[in-house]
Amino acid sequence: MSDIFVLNGPNLNMLGKREPEIYGSLTLDQIHGELTKKAQPLGLSLHFFQSNHEGALVDEIHRIYEMSSAGVIINPGGLTHTSVVLRDALAMLTCPVVEVHLSNIYKRESFRHTSLLSDMVMGQITGFGHFGYHMALMALHHHLSK
Amino acid sequence: MSDIFVLNGPNLNMLGKREPEIYGSLTLDQIHGELTKKAQPLGLSLHFFQSNHEGALVDEIHRIYEMSSAGVIINPGGLTHTSVVLRDALAMLTCPVVEVHLSNIYKRESFRHTSLLSDMVMGQITGFGHFGYHMALMALHHHLSK
Amino acid sequence: MSDIFVLNGPNLNMLGKREPEIYGSLTLDQIHGELTKKAQPLGLSLHFFQSNHEGALVDEIHRIYEMSSAGVIINPGGLTHTSVVLRDALAMLTCPVVEVHLSNIYKRESFRHTSLLSDMVMGQITGFGHFGYHMALMALHHHLSK
Amino acid sequence: MSDIFVLNGPNLNMLGKREPEIYGSLTLDQIHGELTKKAQPLGLSLHFFQSNHEGALVDEIHRIYEMSSAGVIINPGGLTHTSVVLRDALAMLTCPVVEVHLSNIYKRESFRHTSLLSDMVMGQITGFGHFGYHMALMALHHHLSK
Amino acid sequence: MSDIFVLNGPNLNMLGKREPEIYGSLTLDQIHGELTKKAQPLGLSLHFFQSNHEGALVDEIHRIYEMSSAGVIINPGGLTHTSVVLRDALAMLTCPVVEVHLSNIYKRESFRHTSLLSDMVMGQITGFGHFGYHMALMALHHHLSK
Amino acid sequence: MSDIFVLNGPNLNMLGKREPEIYGSLTLDQIHGELTKKAQPLGLSLHFFQSNHEGALVDEIHRIYEMSSAGVIINPGGLTHTSVVLRDALAMLTCPVVEVHLSNIYKRESFRHTSLLSDMVMGQITGFGHFGYHMALMALHHHLSK
Amino acid sequence: MSDIFVLNGPNLNMLGKREPEIYGSLTLDQIHGELTKKAQPLGLSLHFFQSNHEGALVDEIHRIYEMSSAGVIINPGGLTHTSVVLRDALAMLTCPVVEVHLSNIYKRESFRHTSLLSDMVMGQITGFGHFGYHMALMALHHHLSK
Amino acid sequence: MSDIFVLNGPNLNMLGKREPEIYGSLTLDQIHGELTKKAQPLGLSLHFFQSNHEGALVDEIHRIYEMSSAGVIINPGGLTHTSVVLRDALAMLTCPVVEVHLSNIYKRESFRHTSLLSDMVMGQITGFGHFGYHMALMALHHHLSK
Amino acid sequence: MSDIFVLNGPNLNMLGKREPEIYGSLTLDQIHGELTKKAQPLGLSLHFFQSNHEGALVDEIHRIYEMSSAGVIINPGGLTHTSVVLRDALAMLTCPVVEVHLSNIYKRESFRHTSLLSDMVMGQITGFGHFGYHMALMALHHHLSK
Amino acid sequence: MSDIFVLNGPNLNMLGKREPEIYGSLTLDQIHGELTKKAQPLGLSLHFFQSNHEGALVDEIHRIYEMSSAGVIINPGGLTHTSVVLRDALAMLTCPVVEVHLSNIYKRESFRHTSLLSDMVMGQITGFGHFGYHMALMALHHHLSK
Amino acid sequence: MSDIFVLNGPNLNMLGKREPEIYGSLTLDQIHGELTKKAQPLGLSLHFFQSNHEGALVDEIHRIYEMSSAGVIINPGGLTHTSVVLRDALAMLTCPVVEVHLSNIYKRESFRHTSLLSDMVMGQITGFGHFGYHMALMALHHHLSK
Amino acid sequence: MSDIFVLNGPNLNMLGKREPEIYGSLTLDQIHGELTKKAQPLGLSLHFFQSNHEGALVDEIHRIYEMSSAGVIINPGGLTHTSVVLRDALAMLTCPVVEVHLSNIYKRESFRHTSLLSDMVMGQITGFGHFGYHMALMALHHHLSK
Repeated sequence: MSDIFVLNGPNLNMLGKREPEIYGSLTLDQIHGELTKKAQPLGLSLHFFQSNHEGALVDEIHRIYEMSSAGVIINPGGLTHTSVVLRDALAMLTCPVVEVHLSNIYKRESFRHTSLLSDMVMGQITGFGHFGYHMALMALHHHLSK
Repeated sequence: MSDIFVLNGPNLNMLGKREPEIYGSLTLDQIHGELTKKAQPLGLSLHFFQSNHEGALVDEIHRIYEMSSAGVIINPGGLTHTSVVLRDALAMLTCPVVEVHLSNIYKRESFRHTSLLSDMVMGQITGFGHFGYHMALMALHHHLSK
Repeated sequence: MSDIFVLNGPNLNMLGKREPEIYGSLTLDQIHGELTKKAQPLGLSLHFFQSNHEGALVDEIHRIYEMSSAGVIINPGGLTHTSVVLRDALAMLTCPVVEVHLSNIYKRESFRHTSLLSDMVMGQITGFGHFGYHMALMALHHHLSK
Repeated sequence: MSDIFVLNGPNLNMLGKREPEIYGSLTLDQIHGELTKKAQPLGLSLHFFQSNHEGALVDEIHRIYEMSSAGVIINPGGLTHTSVVLRDALAMLTCPVVEVHLSNIYKRESFRHTSLLSDMVMGQITGFGHFGYHMALMALHHHLSK
Repeated sequence: MSDIFVLNGPNLNMLGKREPEIYGSLTLDQIHGELTKKAQPLGLSLHFFQSNHEGALVDEIHRIYEMSSAGVIINPGGLTHTSVVLRDALAMLTCPVVEVHLSNIYKRESFRHTSLLSDMVMGQITGFGHFGYHMALMALHHHLSK
Repeated sequence: MSDIFVLNGPNLNMLGKREPEIYGSLTLDQIHGELTKKAQPLGLSLHFFQSNHEGALVDEIHRIYEMSSAGVIINPGGLTHTSVVLRDALAMLTCPVVEVHLSNIYKRESFRHTSLLSDMVMGQITGFGHFGYHMALMALHHHLSK
Repeated sequence: MSDIFVLNGPNLNMLGKREPEIYGSLTLDQIHGELTKKAQPLGLSLHFFQSNHEGALVDEIHRIYEMSSAGVIINPGGLTHTSVVLRDALAMLTCPVVEVHLSNIYKRESFRHTSLLSDMVMGQITGFGHFGYHMALMALHHHLSK
Repeated sequence: MSDIFVLNGPNLNMLGKREPEIYGSLTLDQIHGELTKKAQPLGLSLHFFQSNHEGALVDEIHRIYEMSSAGVIINPGGLTHTSVVLRDALAMLTCPVVEVHLSNIYKRESFRHTSLLSDMVMGQITGFGHFGYHMALMALHHHLSK
Repeated sequence: MSDIFVLNGPNLNMLGKREPEIYGSLTLDQIHGELTKKAQPLGLSLHFFQSNHEGALVDEIHRIYEMSSAGVIINPGGLTHTSVVLRDALAMLTCPVVEVHLSNIYKRESFRHTSLLSDMVMGQITGFGHFGYHMALMALHHHLSK
Repeated sequence: MSDIFVLNGPNLNMLGKREPEIYGSLTLDQIHGELTKKAQPLGLSLHFFQSNHEGALVDEIHRIYEMSSAGVIINPGGLTHTSVVLRDALAMLTCPVVEVHLSNIYKRESFRHTSLLSDMVMGQITGFGHFGYHMALMALHHHLSK
Repeated sequence: MSDIFVLNGPNLNMLGKREPEIYGSLTLDQIHGELTKKAQPLGLSLHFFQSNHEGALVDEIHRIYEMSSAGVIINPGGLTHTSVVLRDALAMLTCPVVEVHLSNIYKRESFRHTSLLSDMVMGQITGFGHFGYHMALMALHHHLSK
Repeated sequence: MSDIFVLNGPNLNMLGKREPEIYGSLTLDQIHGELTKKAQPLGLSLHFFQSNHEGALVDEIHRIYEMSSAGVIINPGGLTHTSVVLRDALAMLTCPVVEVHLSNIYKRESFRHTSLLSDMVMGQITGFGHFGYHMALMALHHHLSK
């Protein structure tokens, strides 16, 4: 079993409660449950982490750096557009990283159109709601099977 | 009694100690004491929270979201100009939010002239020192009495 | 009795008629009436002036300059964003000046986000409708009582 | 069987020949073959179109507009960053559209970081090579199954 | 009879079908029919051309250049904002050119507020729907009668 | 008879005297005379107003707001590019407004290429000299006949 | 005797009262008196005008346009940086115009560093206090003597 | 004999007809004739292609890519400043490419001062009229002789 | 013994592990050990603090503010470019602060070329690897000896 | 006799030869001669220096710094817009400095509209040809007489 | 024999020594030798000048201005992007000037993409190494033969 | 003994005389004396050069290039922000270069915050007065000892 880390940034603990017409009605726990079901037959073991603290996310990425991780899926939330610190942490990782956004960030405020992270990752998926995590999982699986 | 939450962001725990000629000589505790005195006859119950950690402020706003809050007063300090994460947290709240700045931010460095939060709040009060919190309280009281 | 001057800029004579869902249903005269009631017990004598002409506002500020004014409340309307001339007039005043905007200007067109006046005043109040004038009155009263 | 249209813009006919270290060694025909195999069991019928002519792509989108299309996958190539015309054509479509880029456009020249199309589509997938088309197909299938 | 050429750029063949609440419910053929009726008593002979291909529009302008044209009416669609090539072609013409836009482009996305063509033409008409073509016709007729 | 108000901004009282090679040799009075002739058979009654004072134009628009106006034609002159105050006044009107410029403003200094008014009006006509007023009249007549 | 018009814009009626350490302690009347003394032996007749109203300045420039003026000296005050209307009025004049600023505008706020007028005048004098008017007078005299 | 491809972009088919004072009085055919004469003794075989269609130029560059080309001379016309698509096509070529402009593009509108192509080519020649093609030929000949 | 505080921001706990070719092969602990050895003979007592949490760094600076510190050395990592909060905390300190960067930040991404902190400190040292800390120590020692 | 230094920067040695319709037909020597005649009765002794070398001008300003200079007149030519070095040299001087430009720099290329020097000098005179030097002389004389 | 001046700016004396993989292995003297050989049969007499001093280049251009020069070839080196002074000197020349750059400046740092000189010259040649000087010579010869 | 070259740019010959509260009261000669004392025991031989002429500094760097230099310390003064020529000269050197600024350039005018040189050097030291040269010396010594 390969280890995949699924990181969620600030405010994503409120999924299902907060503006469901935008972000969907599933909670983060429900999404994690569904992802785990899909990961098992692919031979992938998922590890979840969410925090509203930039520093805690960085600490977690350092922990992942020390382990033999096969891939990372990250939805950095609002930190996408402001955190050089998160960028520097991700730059350390040598395993593939996939960036996921639930909403189409290009339909929103202009400051959401620029990212400090996206040139640090393998690829970006934006606008597909929670199905974006599934797509990320399949992308990592495809990448690891090559 | 309606519940009002008064949030103070980074460095505001140093009020009264730090540059008193700019920020005044009252400590944050003294300001809270005065505000509480004024709030009681108006039927408002105040709850105070201060942190230097962006994540802790977000956690607190999530807690407020779960409760029946009548209003929020927030002085976000330096996060005003940099935190998309705080903006996203405030966007969740349906009660009125008032943004307060002690100093007149338009007399200071140009990066303080733009705010990531002010289009997420009911109104903004800037430049009146700690009396700005009193003005915010009166504005919420007026709003709730309508 | 201290003299306070309340200046309103272009288009504010139309309050109550123009887009009431944004600007409220009270006319400027009604607002003035309410303010006067509140000012008297505070020992403040109010003087009102409104004009759609930048030059007339400047003339009035020069007249205030010659008198012993205790404070000025100004809602400069659209001139906020374009008038260096009004800025230069306000710069002459040594009494405290409070800038009021009825709507939250940060929720509107981007050219309304910059002001040529706000670093010339004591403080700014924006987004609280006509209650903003009351808040300005209380801020001046508080300031004069110090 | 639902009809899905897969559009490829300028220079994508050269896939497999042009800079394979960036764009992969599969030709566009081989990618189409693989996609067709995956689409059939999902009940999706694929229709392919490639052109180096902006006008021909617009003509094709008009043709799709007249038909009962269930979804569109588009890799607009270099037109992504320059074509208001293509944007206007896509704006007409009411079926979901998925934008795919083979390379991670955020690792490349800065003019590739802005897109005239991405706020016109359901979502965007960038950086996963030809597997991005498969991800788009799964996203459309998931969307149609809701 | 003087010859007037009426050119329509990309996506305008979809008039009447595409977003009728914005662009009106008349098709381009119906508009051409109405224009022809109005042109005849004014002694003007109209020639229509529409293409989604920038190159085809340029070819047509070259053809017009070779003939004795009395005037050109052009609605360049999305090419207005992006085509130096169309600008260079129009620069060749010595007869008066009138630029028409159906919608008020200044109420739309900011990239539509700048034009590469409008300093190459006699005048511009924007926001009057298909009646804008009639206004252009009257403007050319007035110009030719001087 | 429907009432149409024709407003002219600063410096337009000098038409016919000032740079006739650019602005034409007709005076504003002559243009008004011609327009009146054309308006009568269309059942439109014209009312003219010109001022070099921004405030006087705003006063006039307030007066129009109080009356039952069928439409407004405005050539705001240099205020086009600088007056938020005029924009706010026009925003009050519910009848259609047509913006006219005599010269092609896109052939002139770059600060003339941006307008604070044009997203507040139905449509804009630029570059056709005094015939632009006639075109505006026809546009309003067409609009009122719908 | 040749006629020279000396125009002063907004807030300059306050000279001598307003910030004398910046603008000097002479009133505008005293400056006019001194200038008149110097002008007489040069065969120049001076005419003074000051207003806080942009429109009144424009009206005056139109009046000058109708007369046989030998030159104009203008200190446009804060309108220097914002008034396209004043620029358009000055553009009409064929006699030489000299722009004067009392303070060195390049030592002040950055919005004072750009002028809408200075490419419309013969020359600009900035930073010499009220002596700048004398220098302007000498420049016009020198110019008229050529 | 080595094969050299000479590509001309939009509007260049009008050479000799269009603004001869800028672009010279020779037609494109005459220029091709002269170039051919000069190429033969150098052992170079020239192949000419001109189109007003971006897509057709891309198709042609793909064709060149498949052949054993010794060099390319391209005058991209107005596409120089707008075509990412042409840039991507040229990026495929491994033979040396020389960019030619007839007029000195730095003396013209500012949007002509930036190029999307020039960092994709060996070198650029601008401002020498049709002699620029001869210089390009000599540069390729010199390069091939090294 | 004077107290010197050495603060390290996010990701610097990974020194020696992360990209050693850029940041060197010494761990943060080893660097601290070397610094302590050098500090003792200079009569300086060093106190080390590292955190990936902005808030924790601010808390620590507040703690330093309360103590009698002789100087601060800070390597703020990625917070250099984004943290107004850290800037506000440093602004409180009255002892000299030295900013250190291991790599030459001017050779890296352009967002690293601007700093929110550097006008708040005595001086900046960039590009000398871990020897930069030694240079900072010597600078503080020199400053304290004056 | 007070000493005044008149410095001329690059290319000004060519006055009278170079574009006389812009810069006038007097040579620099003739201008110096005229200035000397005017200076004597005012009790001012003039010293001239011209160089095309930035460094030589700086050397000369250092020499002036060492002497008891009563004032400096400088026409920095093209260095006005590019030389931080000259700015730093002028910043050393405590005597009044007057900046002179022959042509009206605001009518010329936009890069000539910004100056690196003008906030370092007492005042600036632009657009009056060689008479500008005379005006500068009078301004210094007036200043020294106060 | 016609006189052609070949000017080389700063650092070009180091050709052949400095980064030969970019600038080639020929020294400036060797290039001059080759150019002289080519110039003679064309009836052109070459005069060489190189300096690292902006002022010395300006002095030399003044000297050329006084002589009957048939043409100038200039490689301004780094001054291309910063020297208004050199621009002003070149503006004086009436003979044709050709600007040469050895490397393709559009492949280098972005500040090298703008030139203060190129709209002052007949044409520009960039990217062809020392052969660029030969091309410039041929261009001048062709120009003089017309 | 290794050779170290210490270069000082424009205006630095005035150290000790010019604004001593900013730049300190030591002359450049005194600083050189102190540096020499410190260098000897480290086995470093220092060579000093100062000029106000950009060209002379470039000549000197070329001379250093020809010699076996162990390192360079440069304080480029105002050329830091404007000289591409100096940048090109420094780019030639293969020995380590240290950039020193006496004052903290980030506390000064905004044009001093960008440097054309700092990505060409090993590291930068700013804000430590003349002690910065000592720090540079120690950095070079440390570098050479590795």
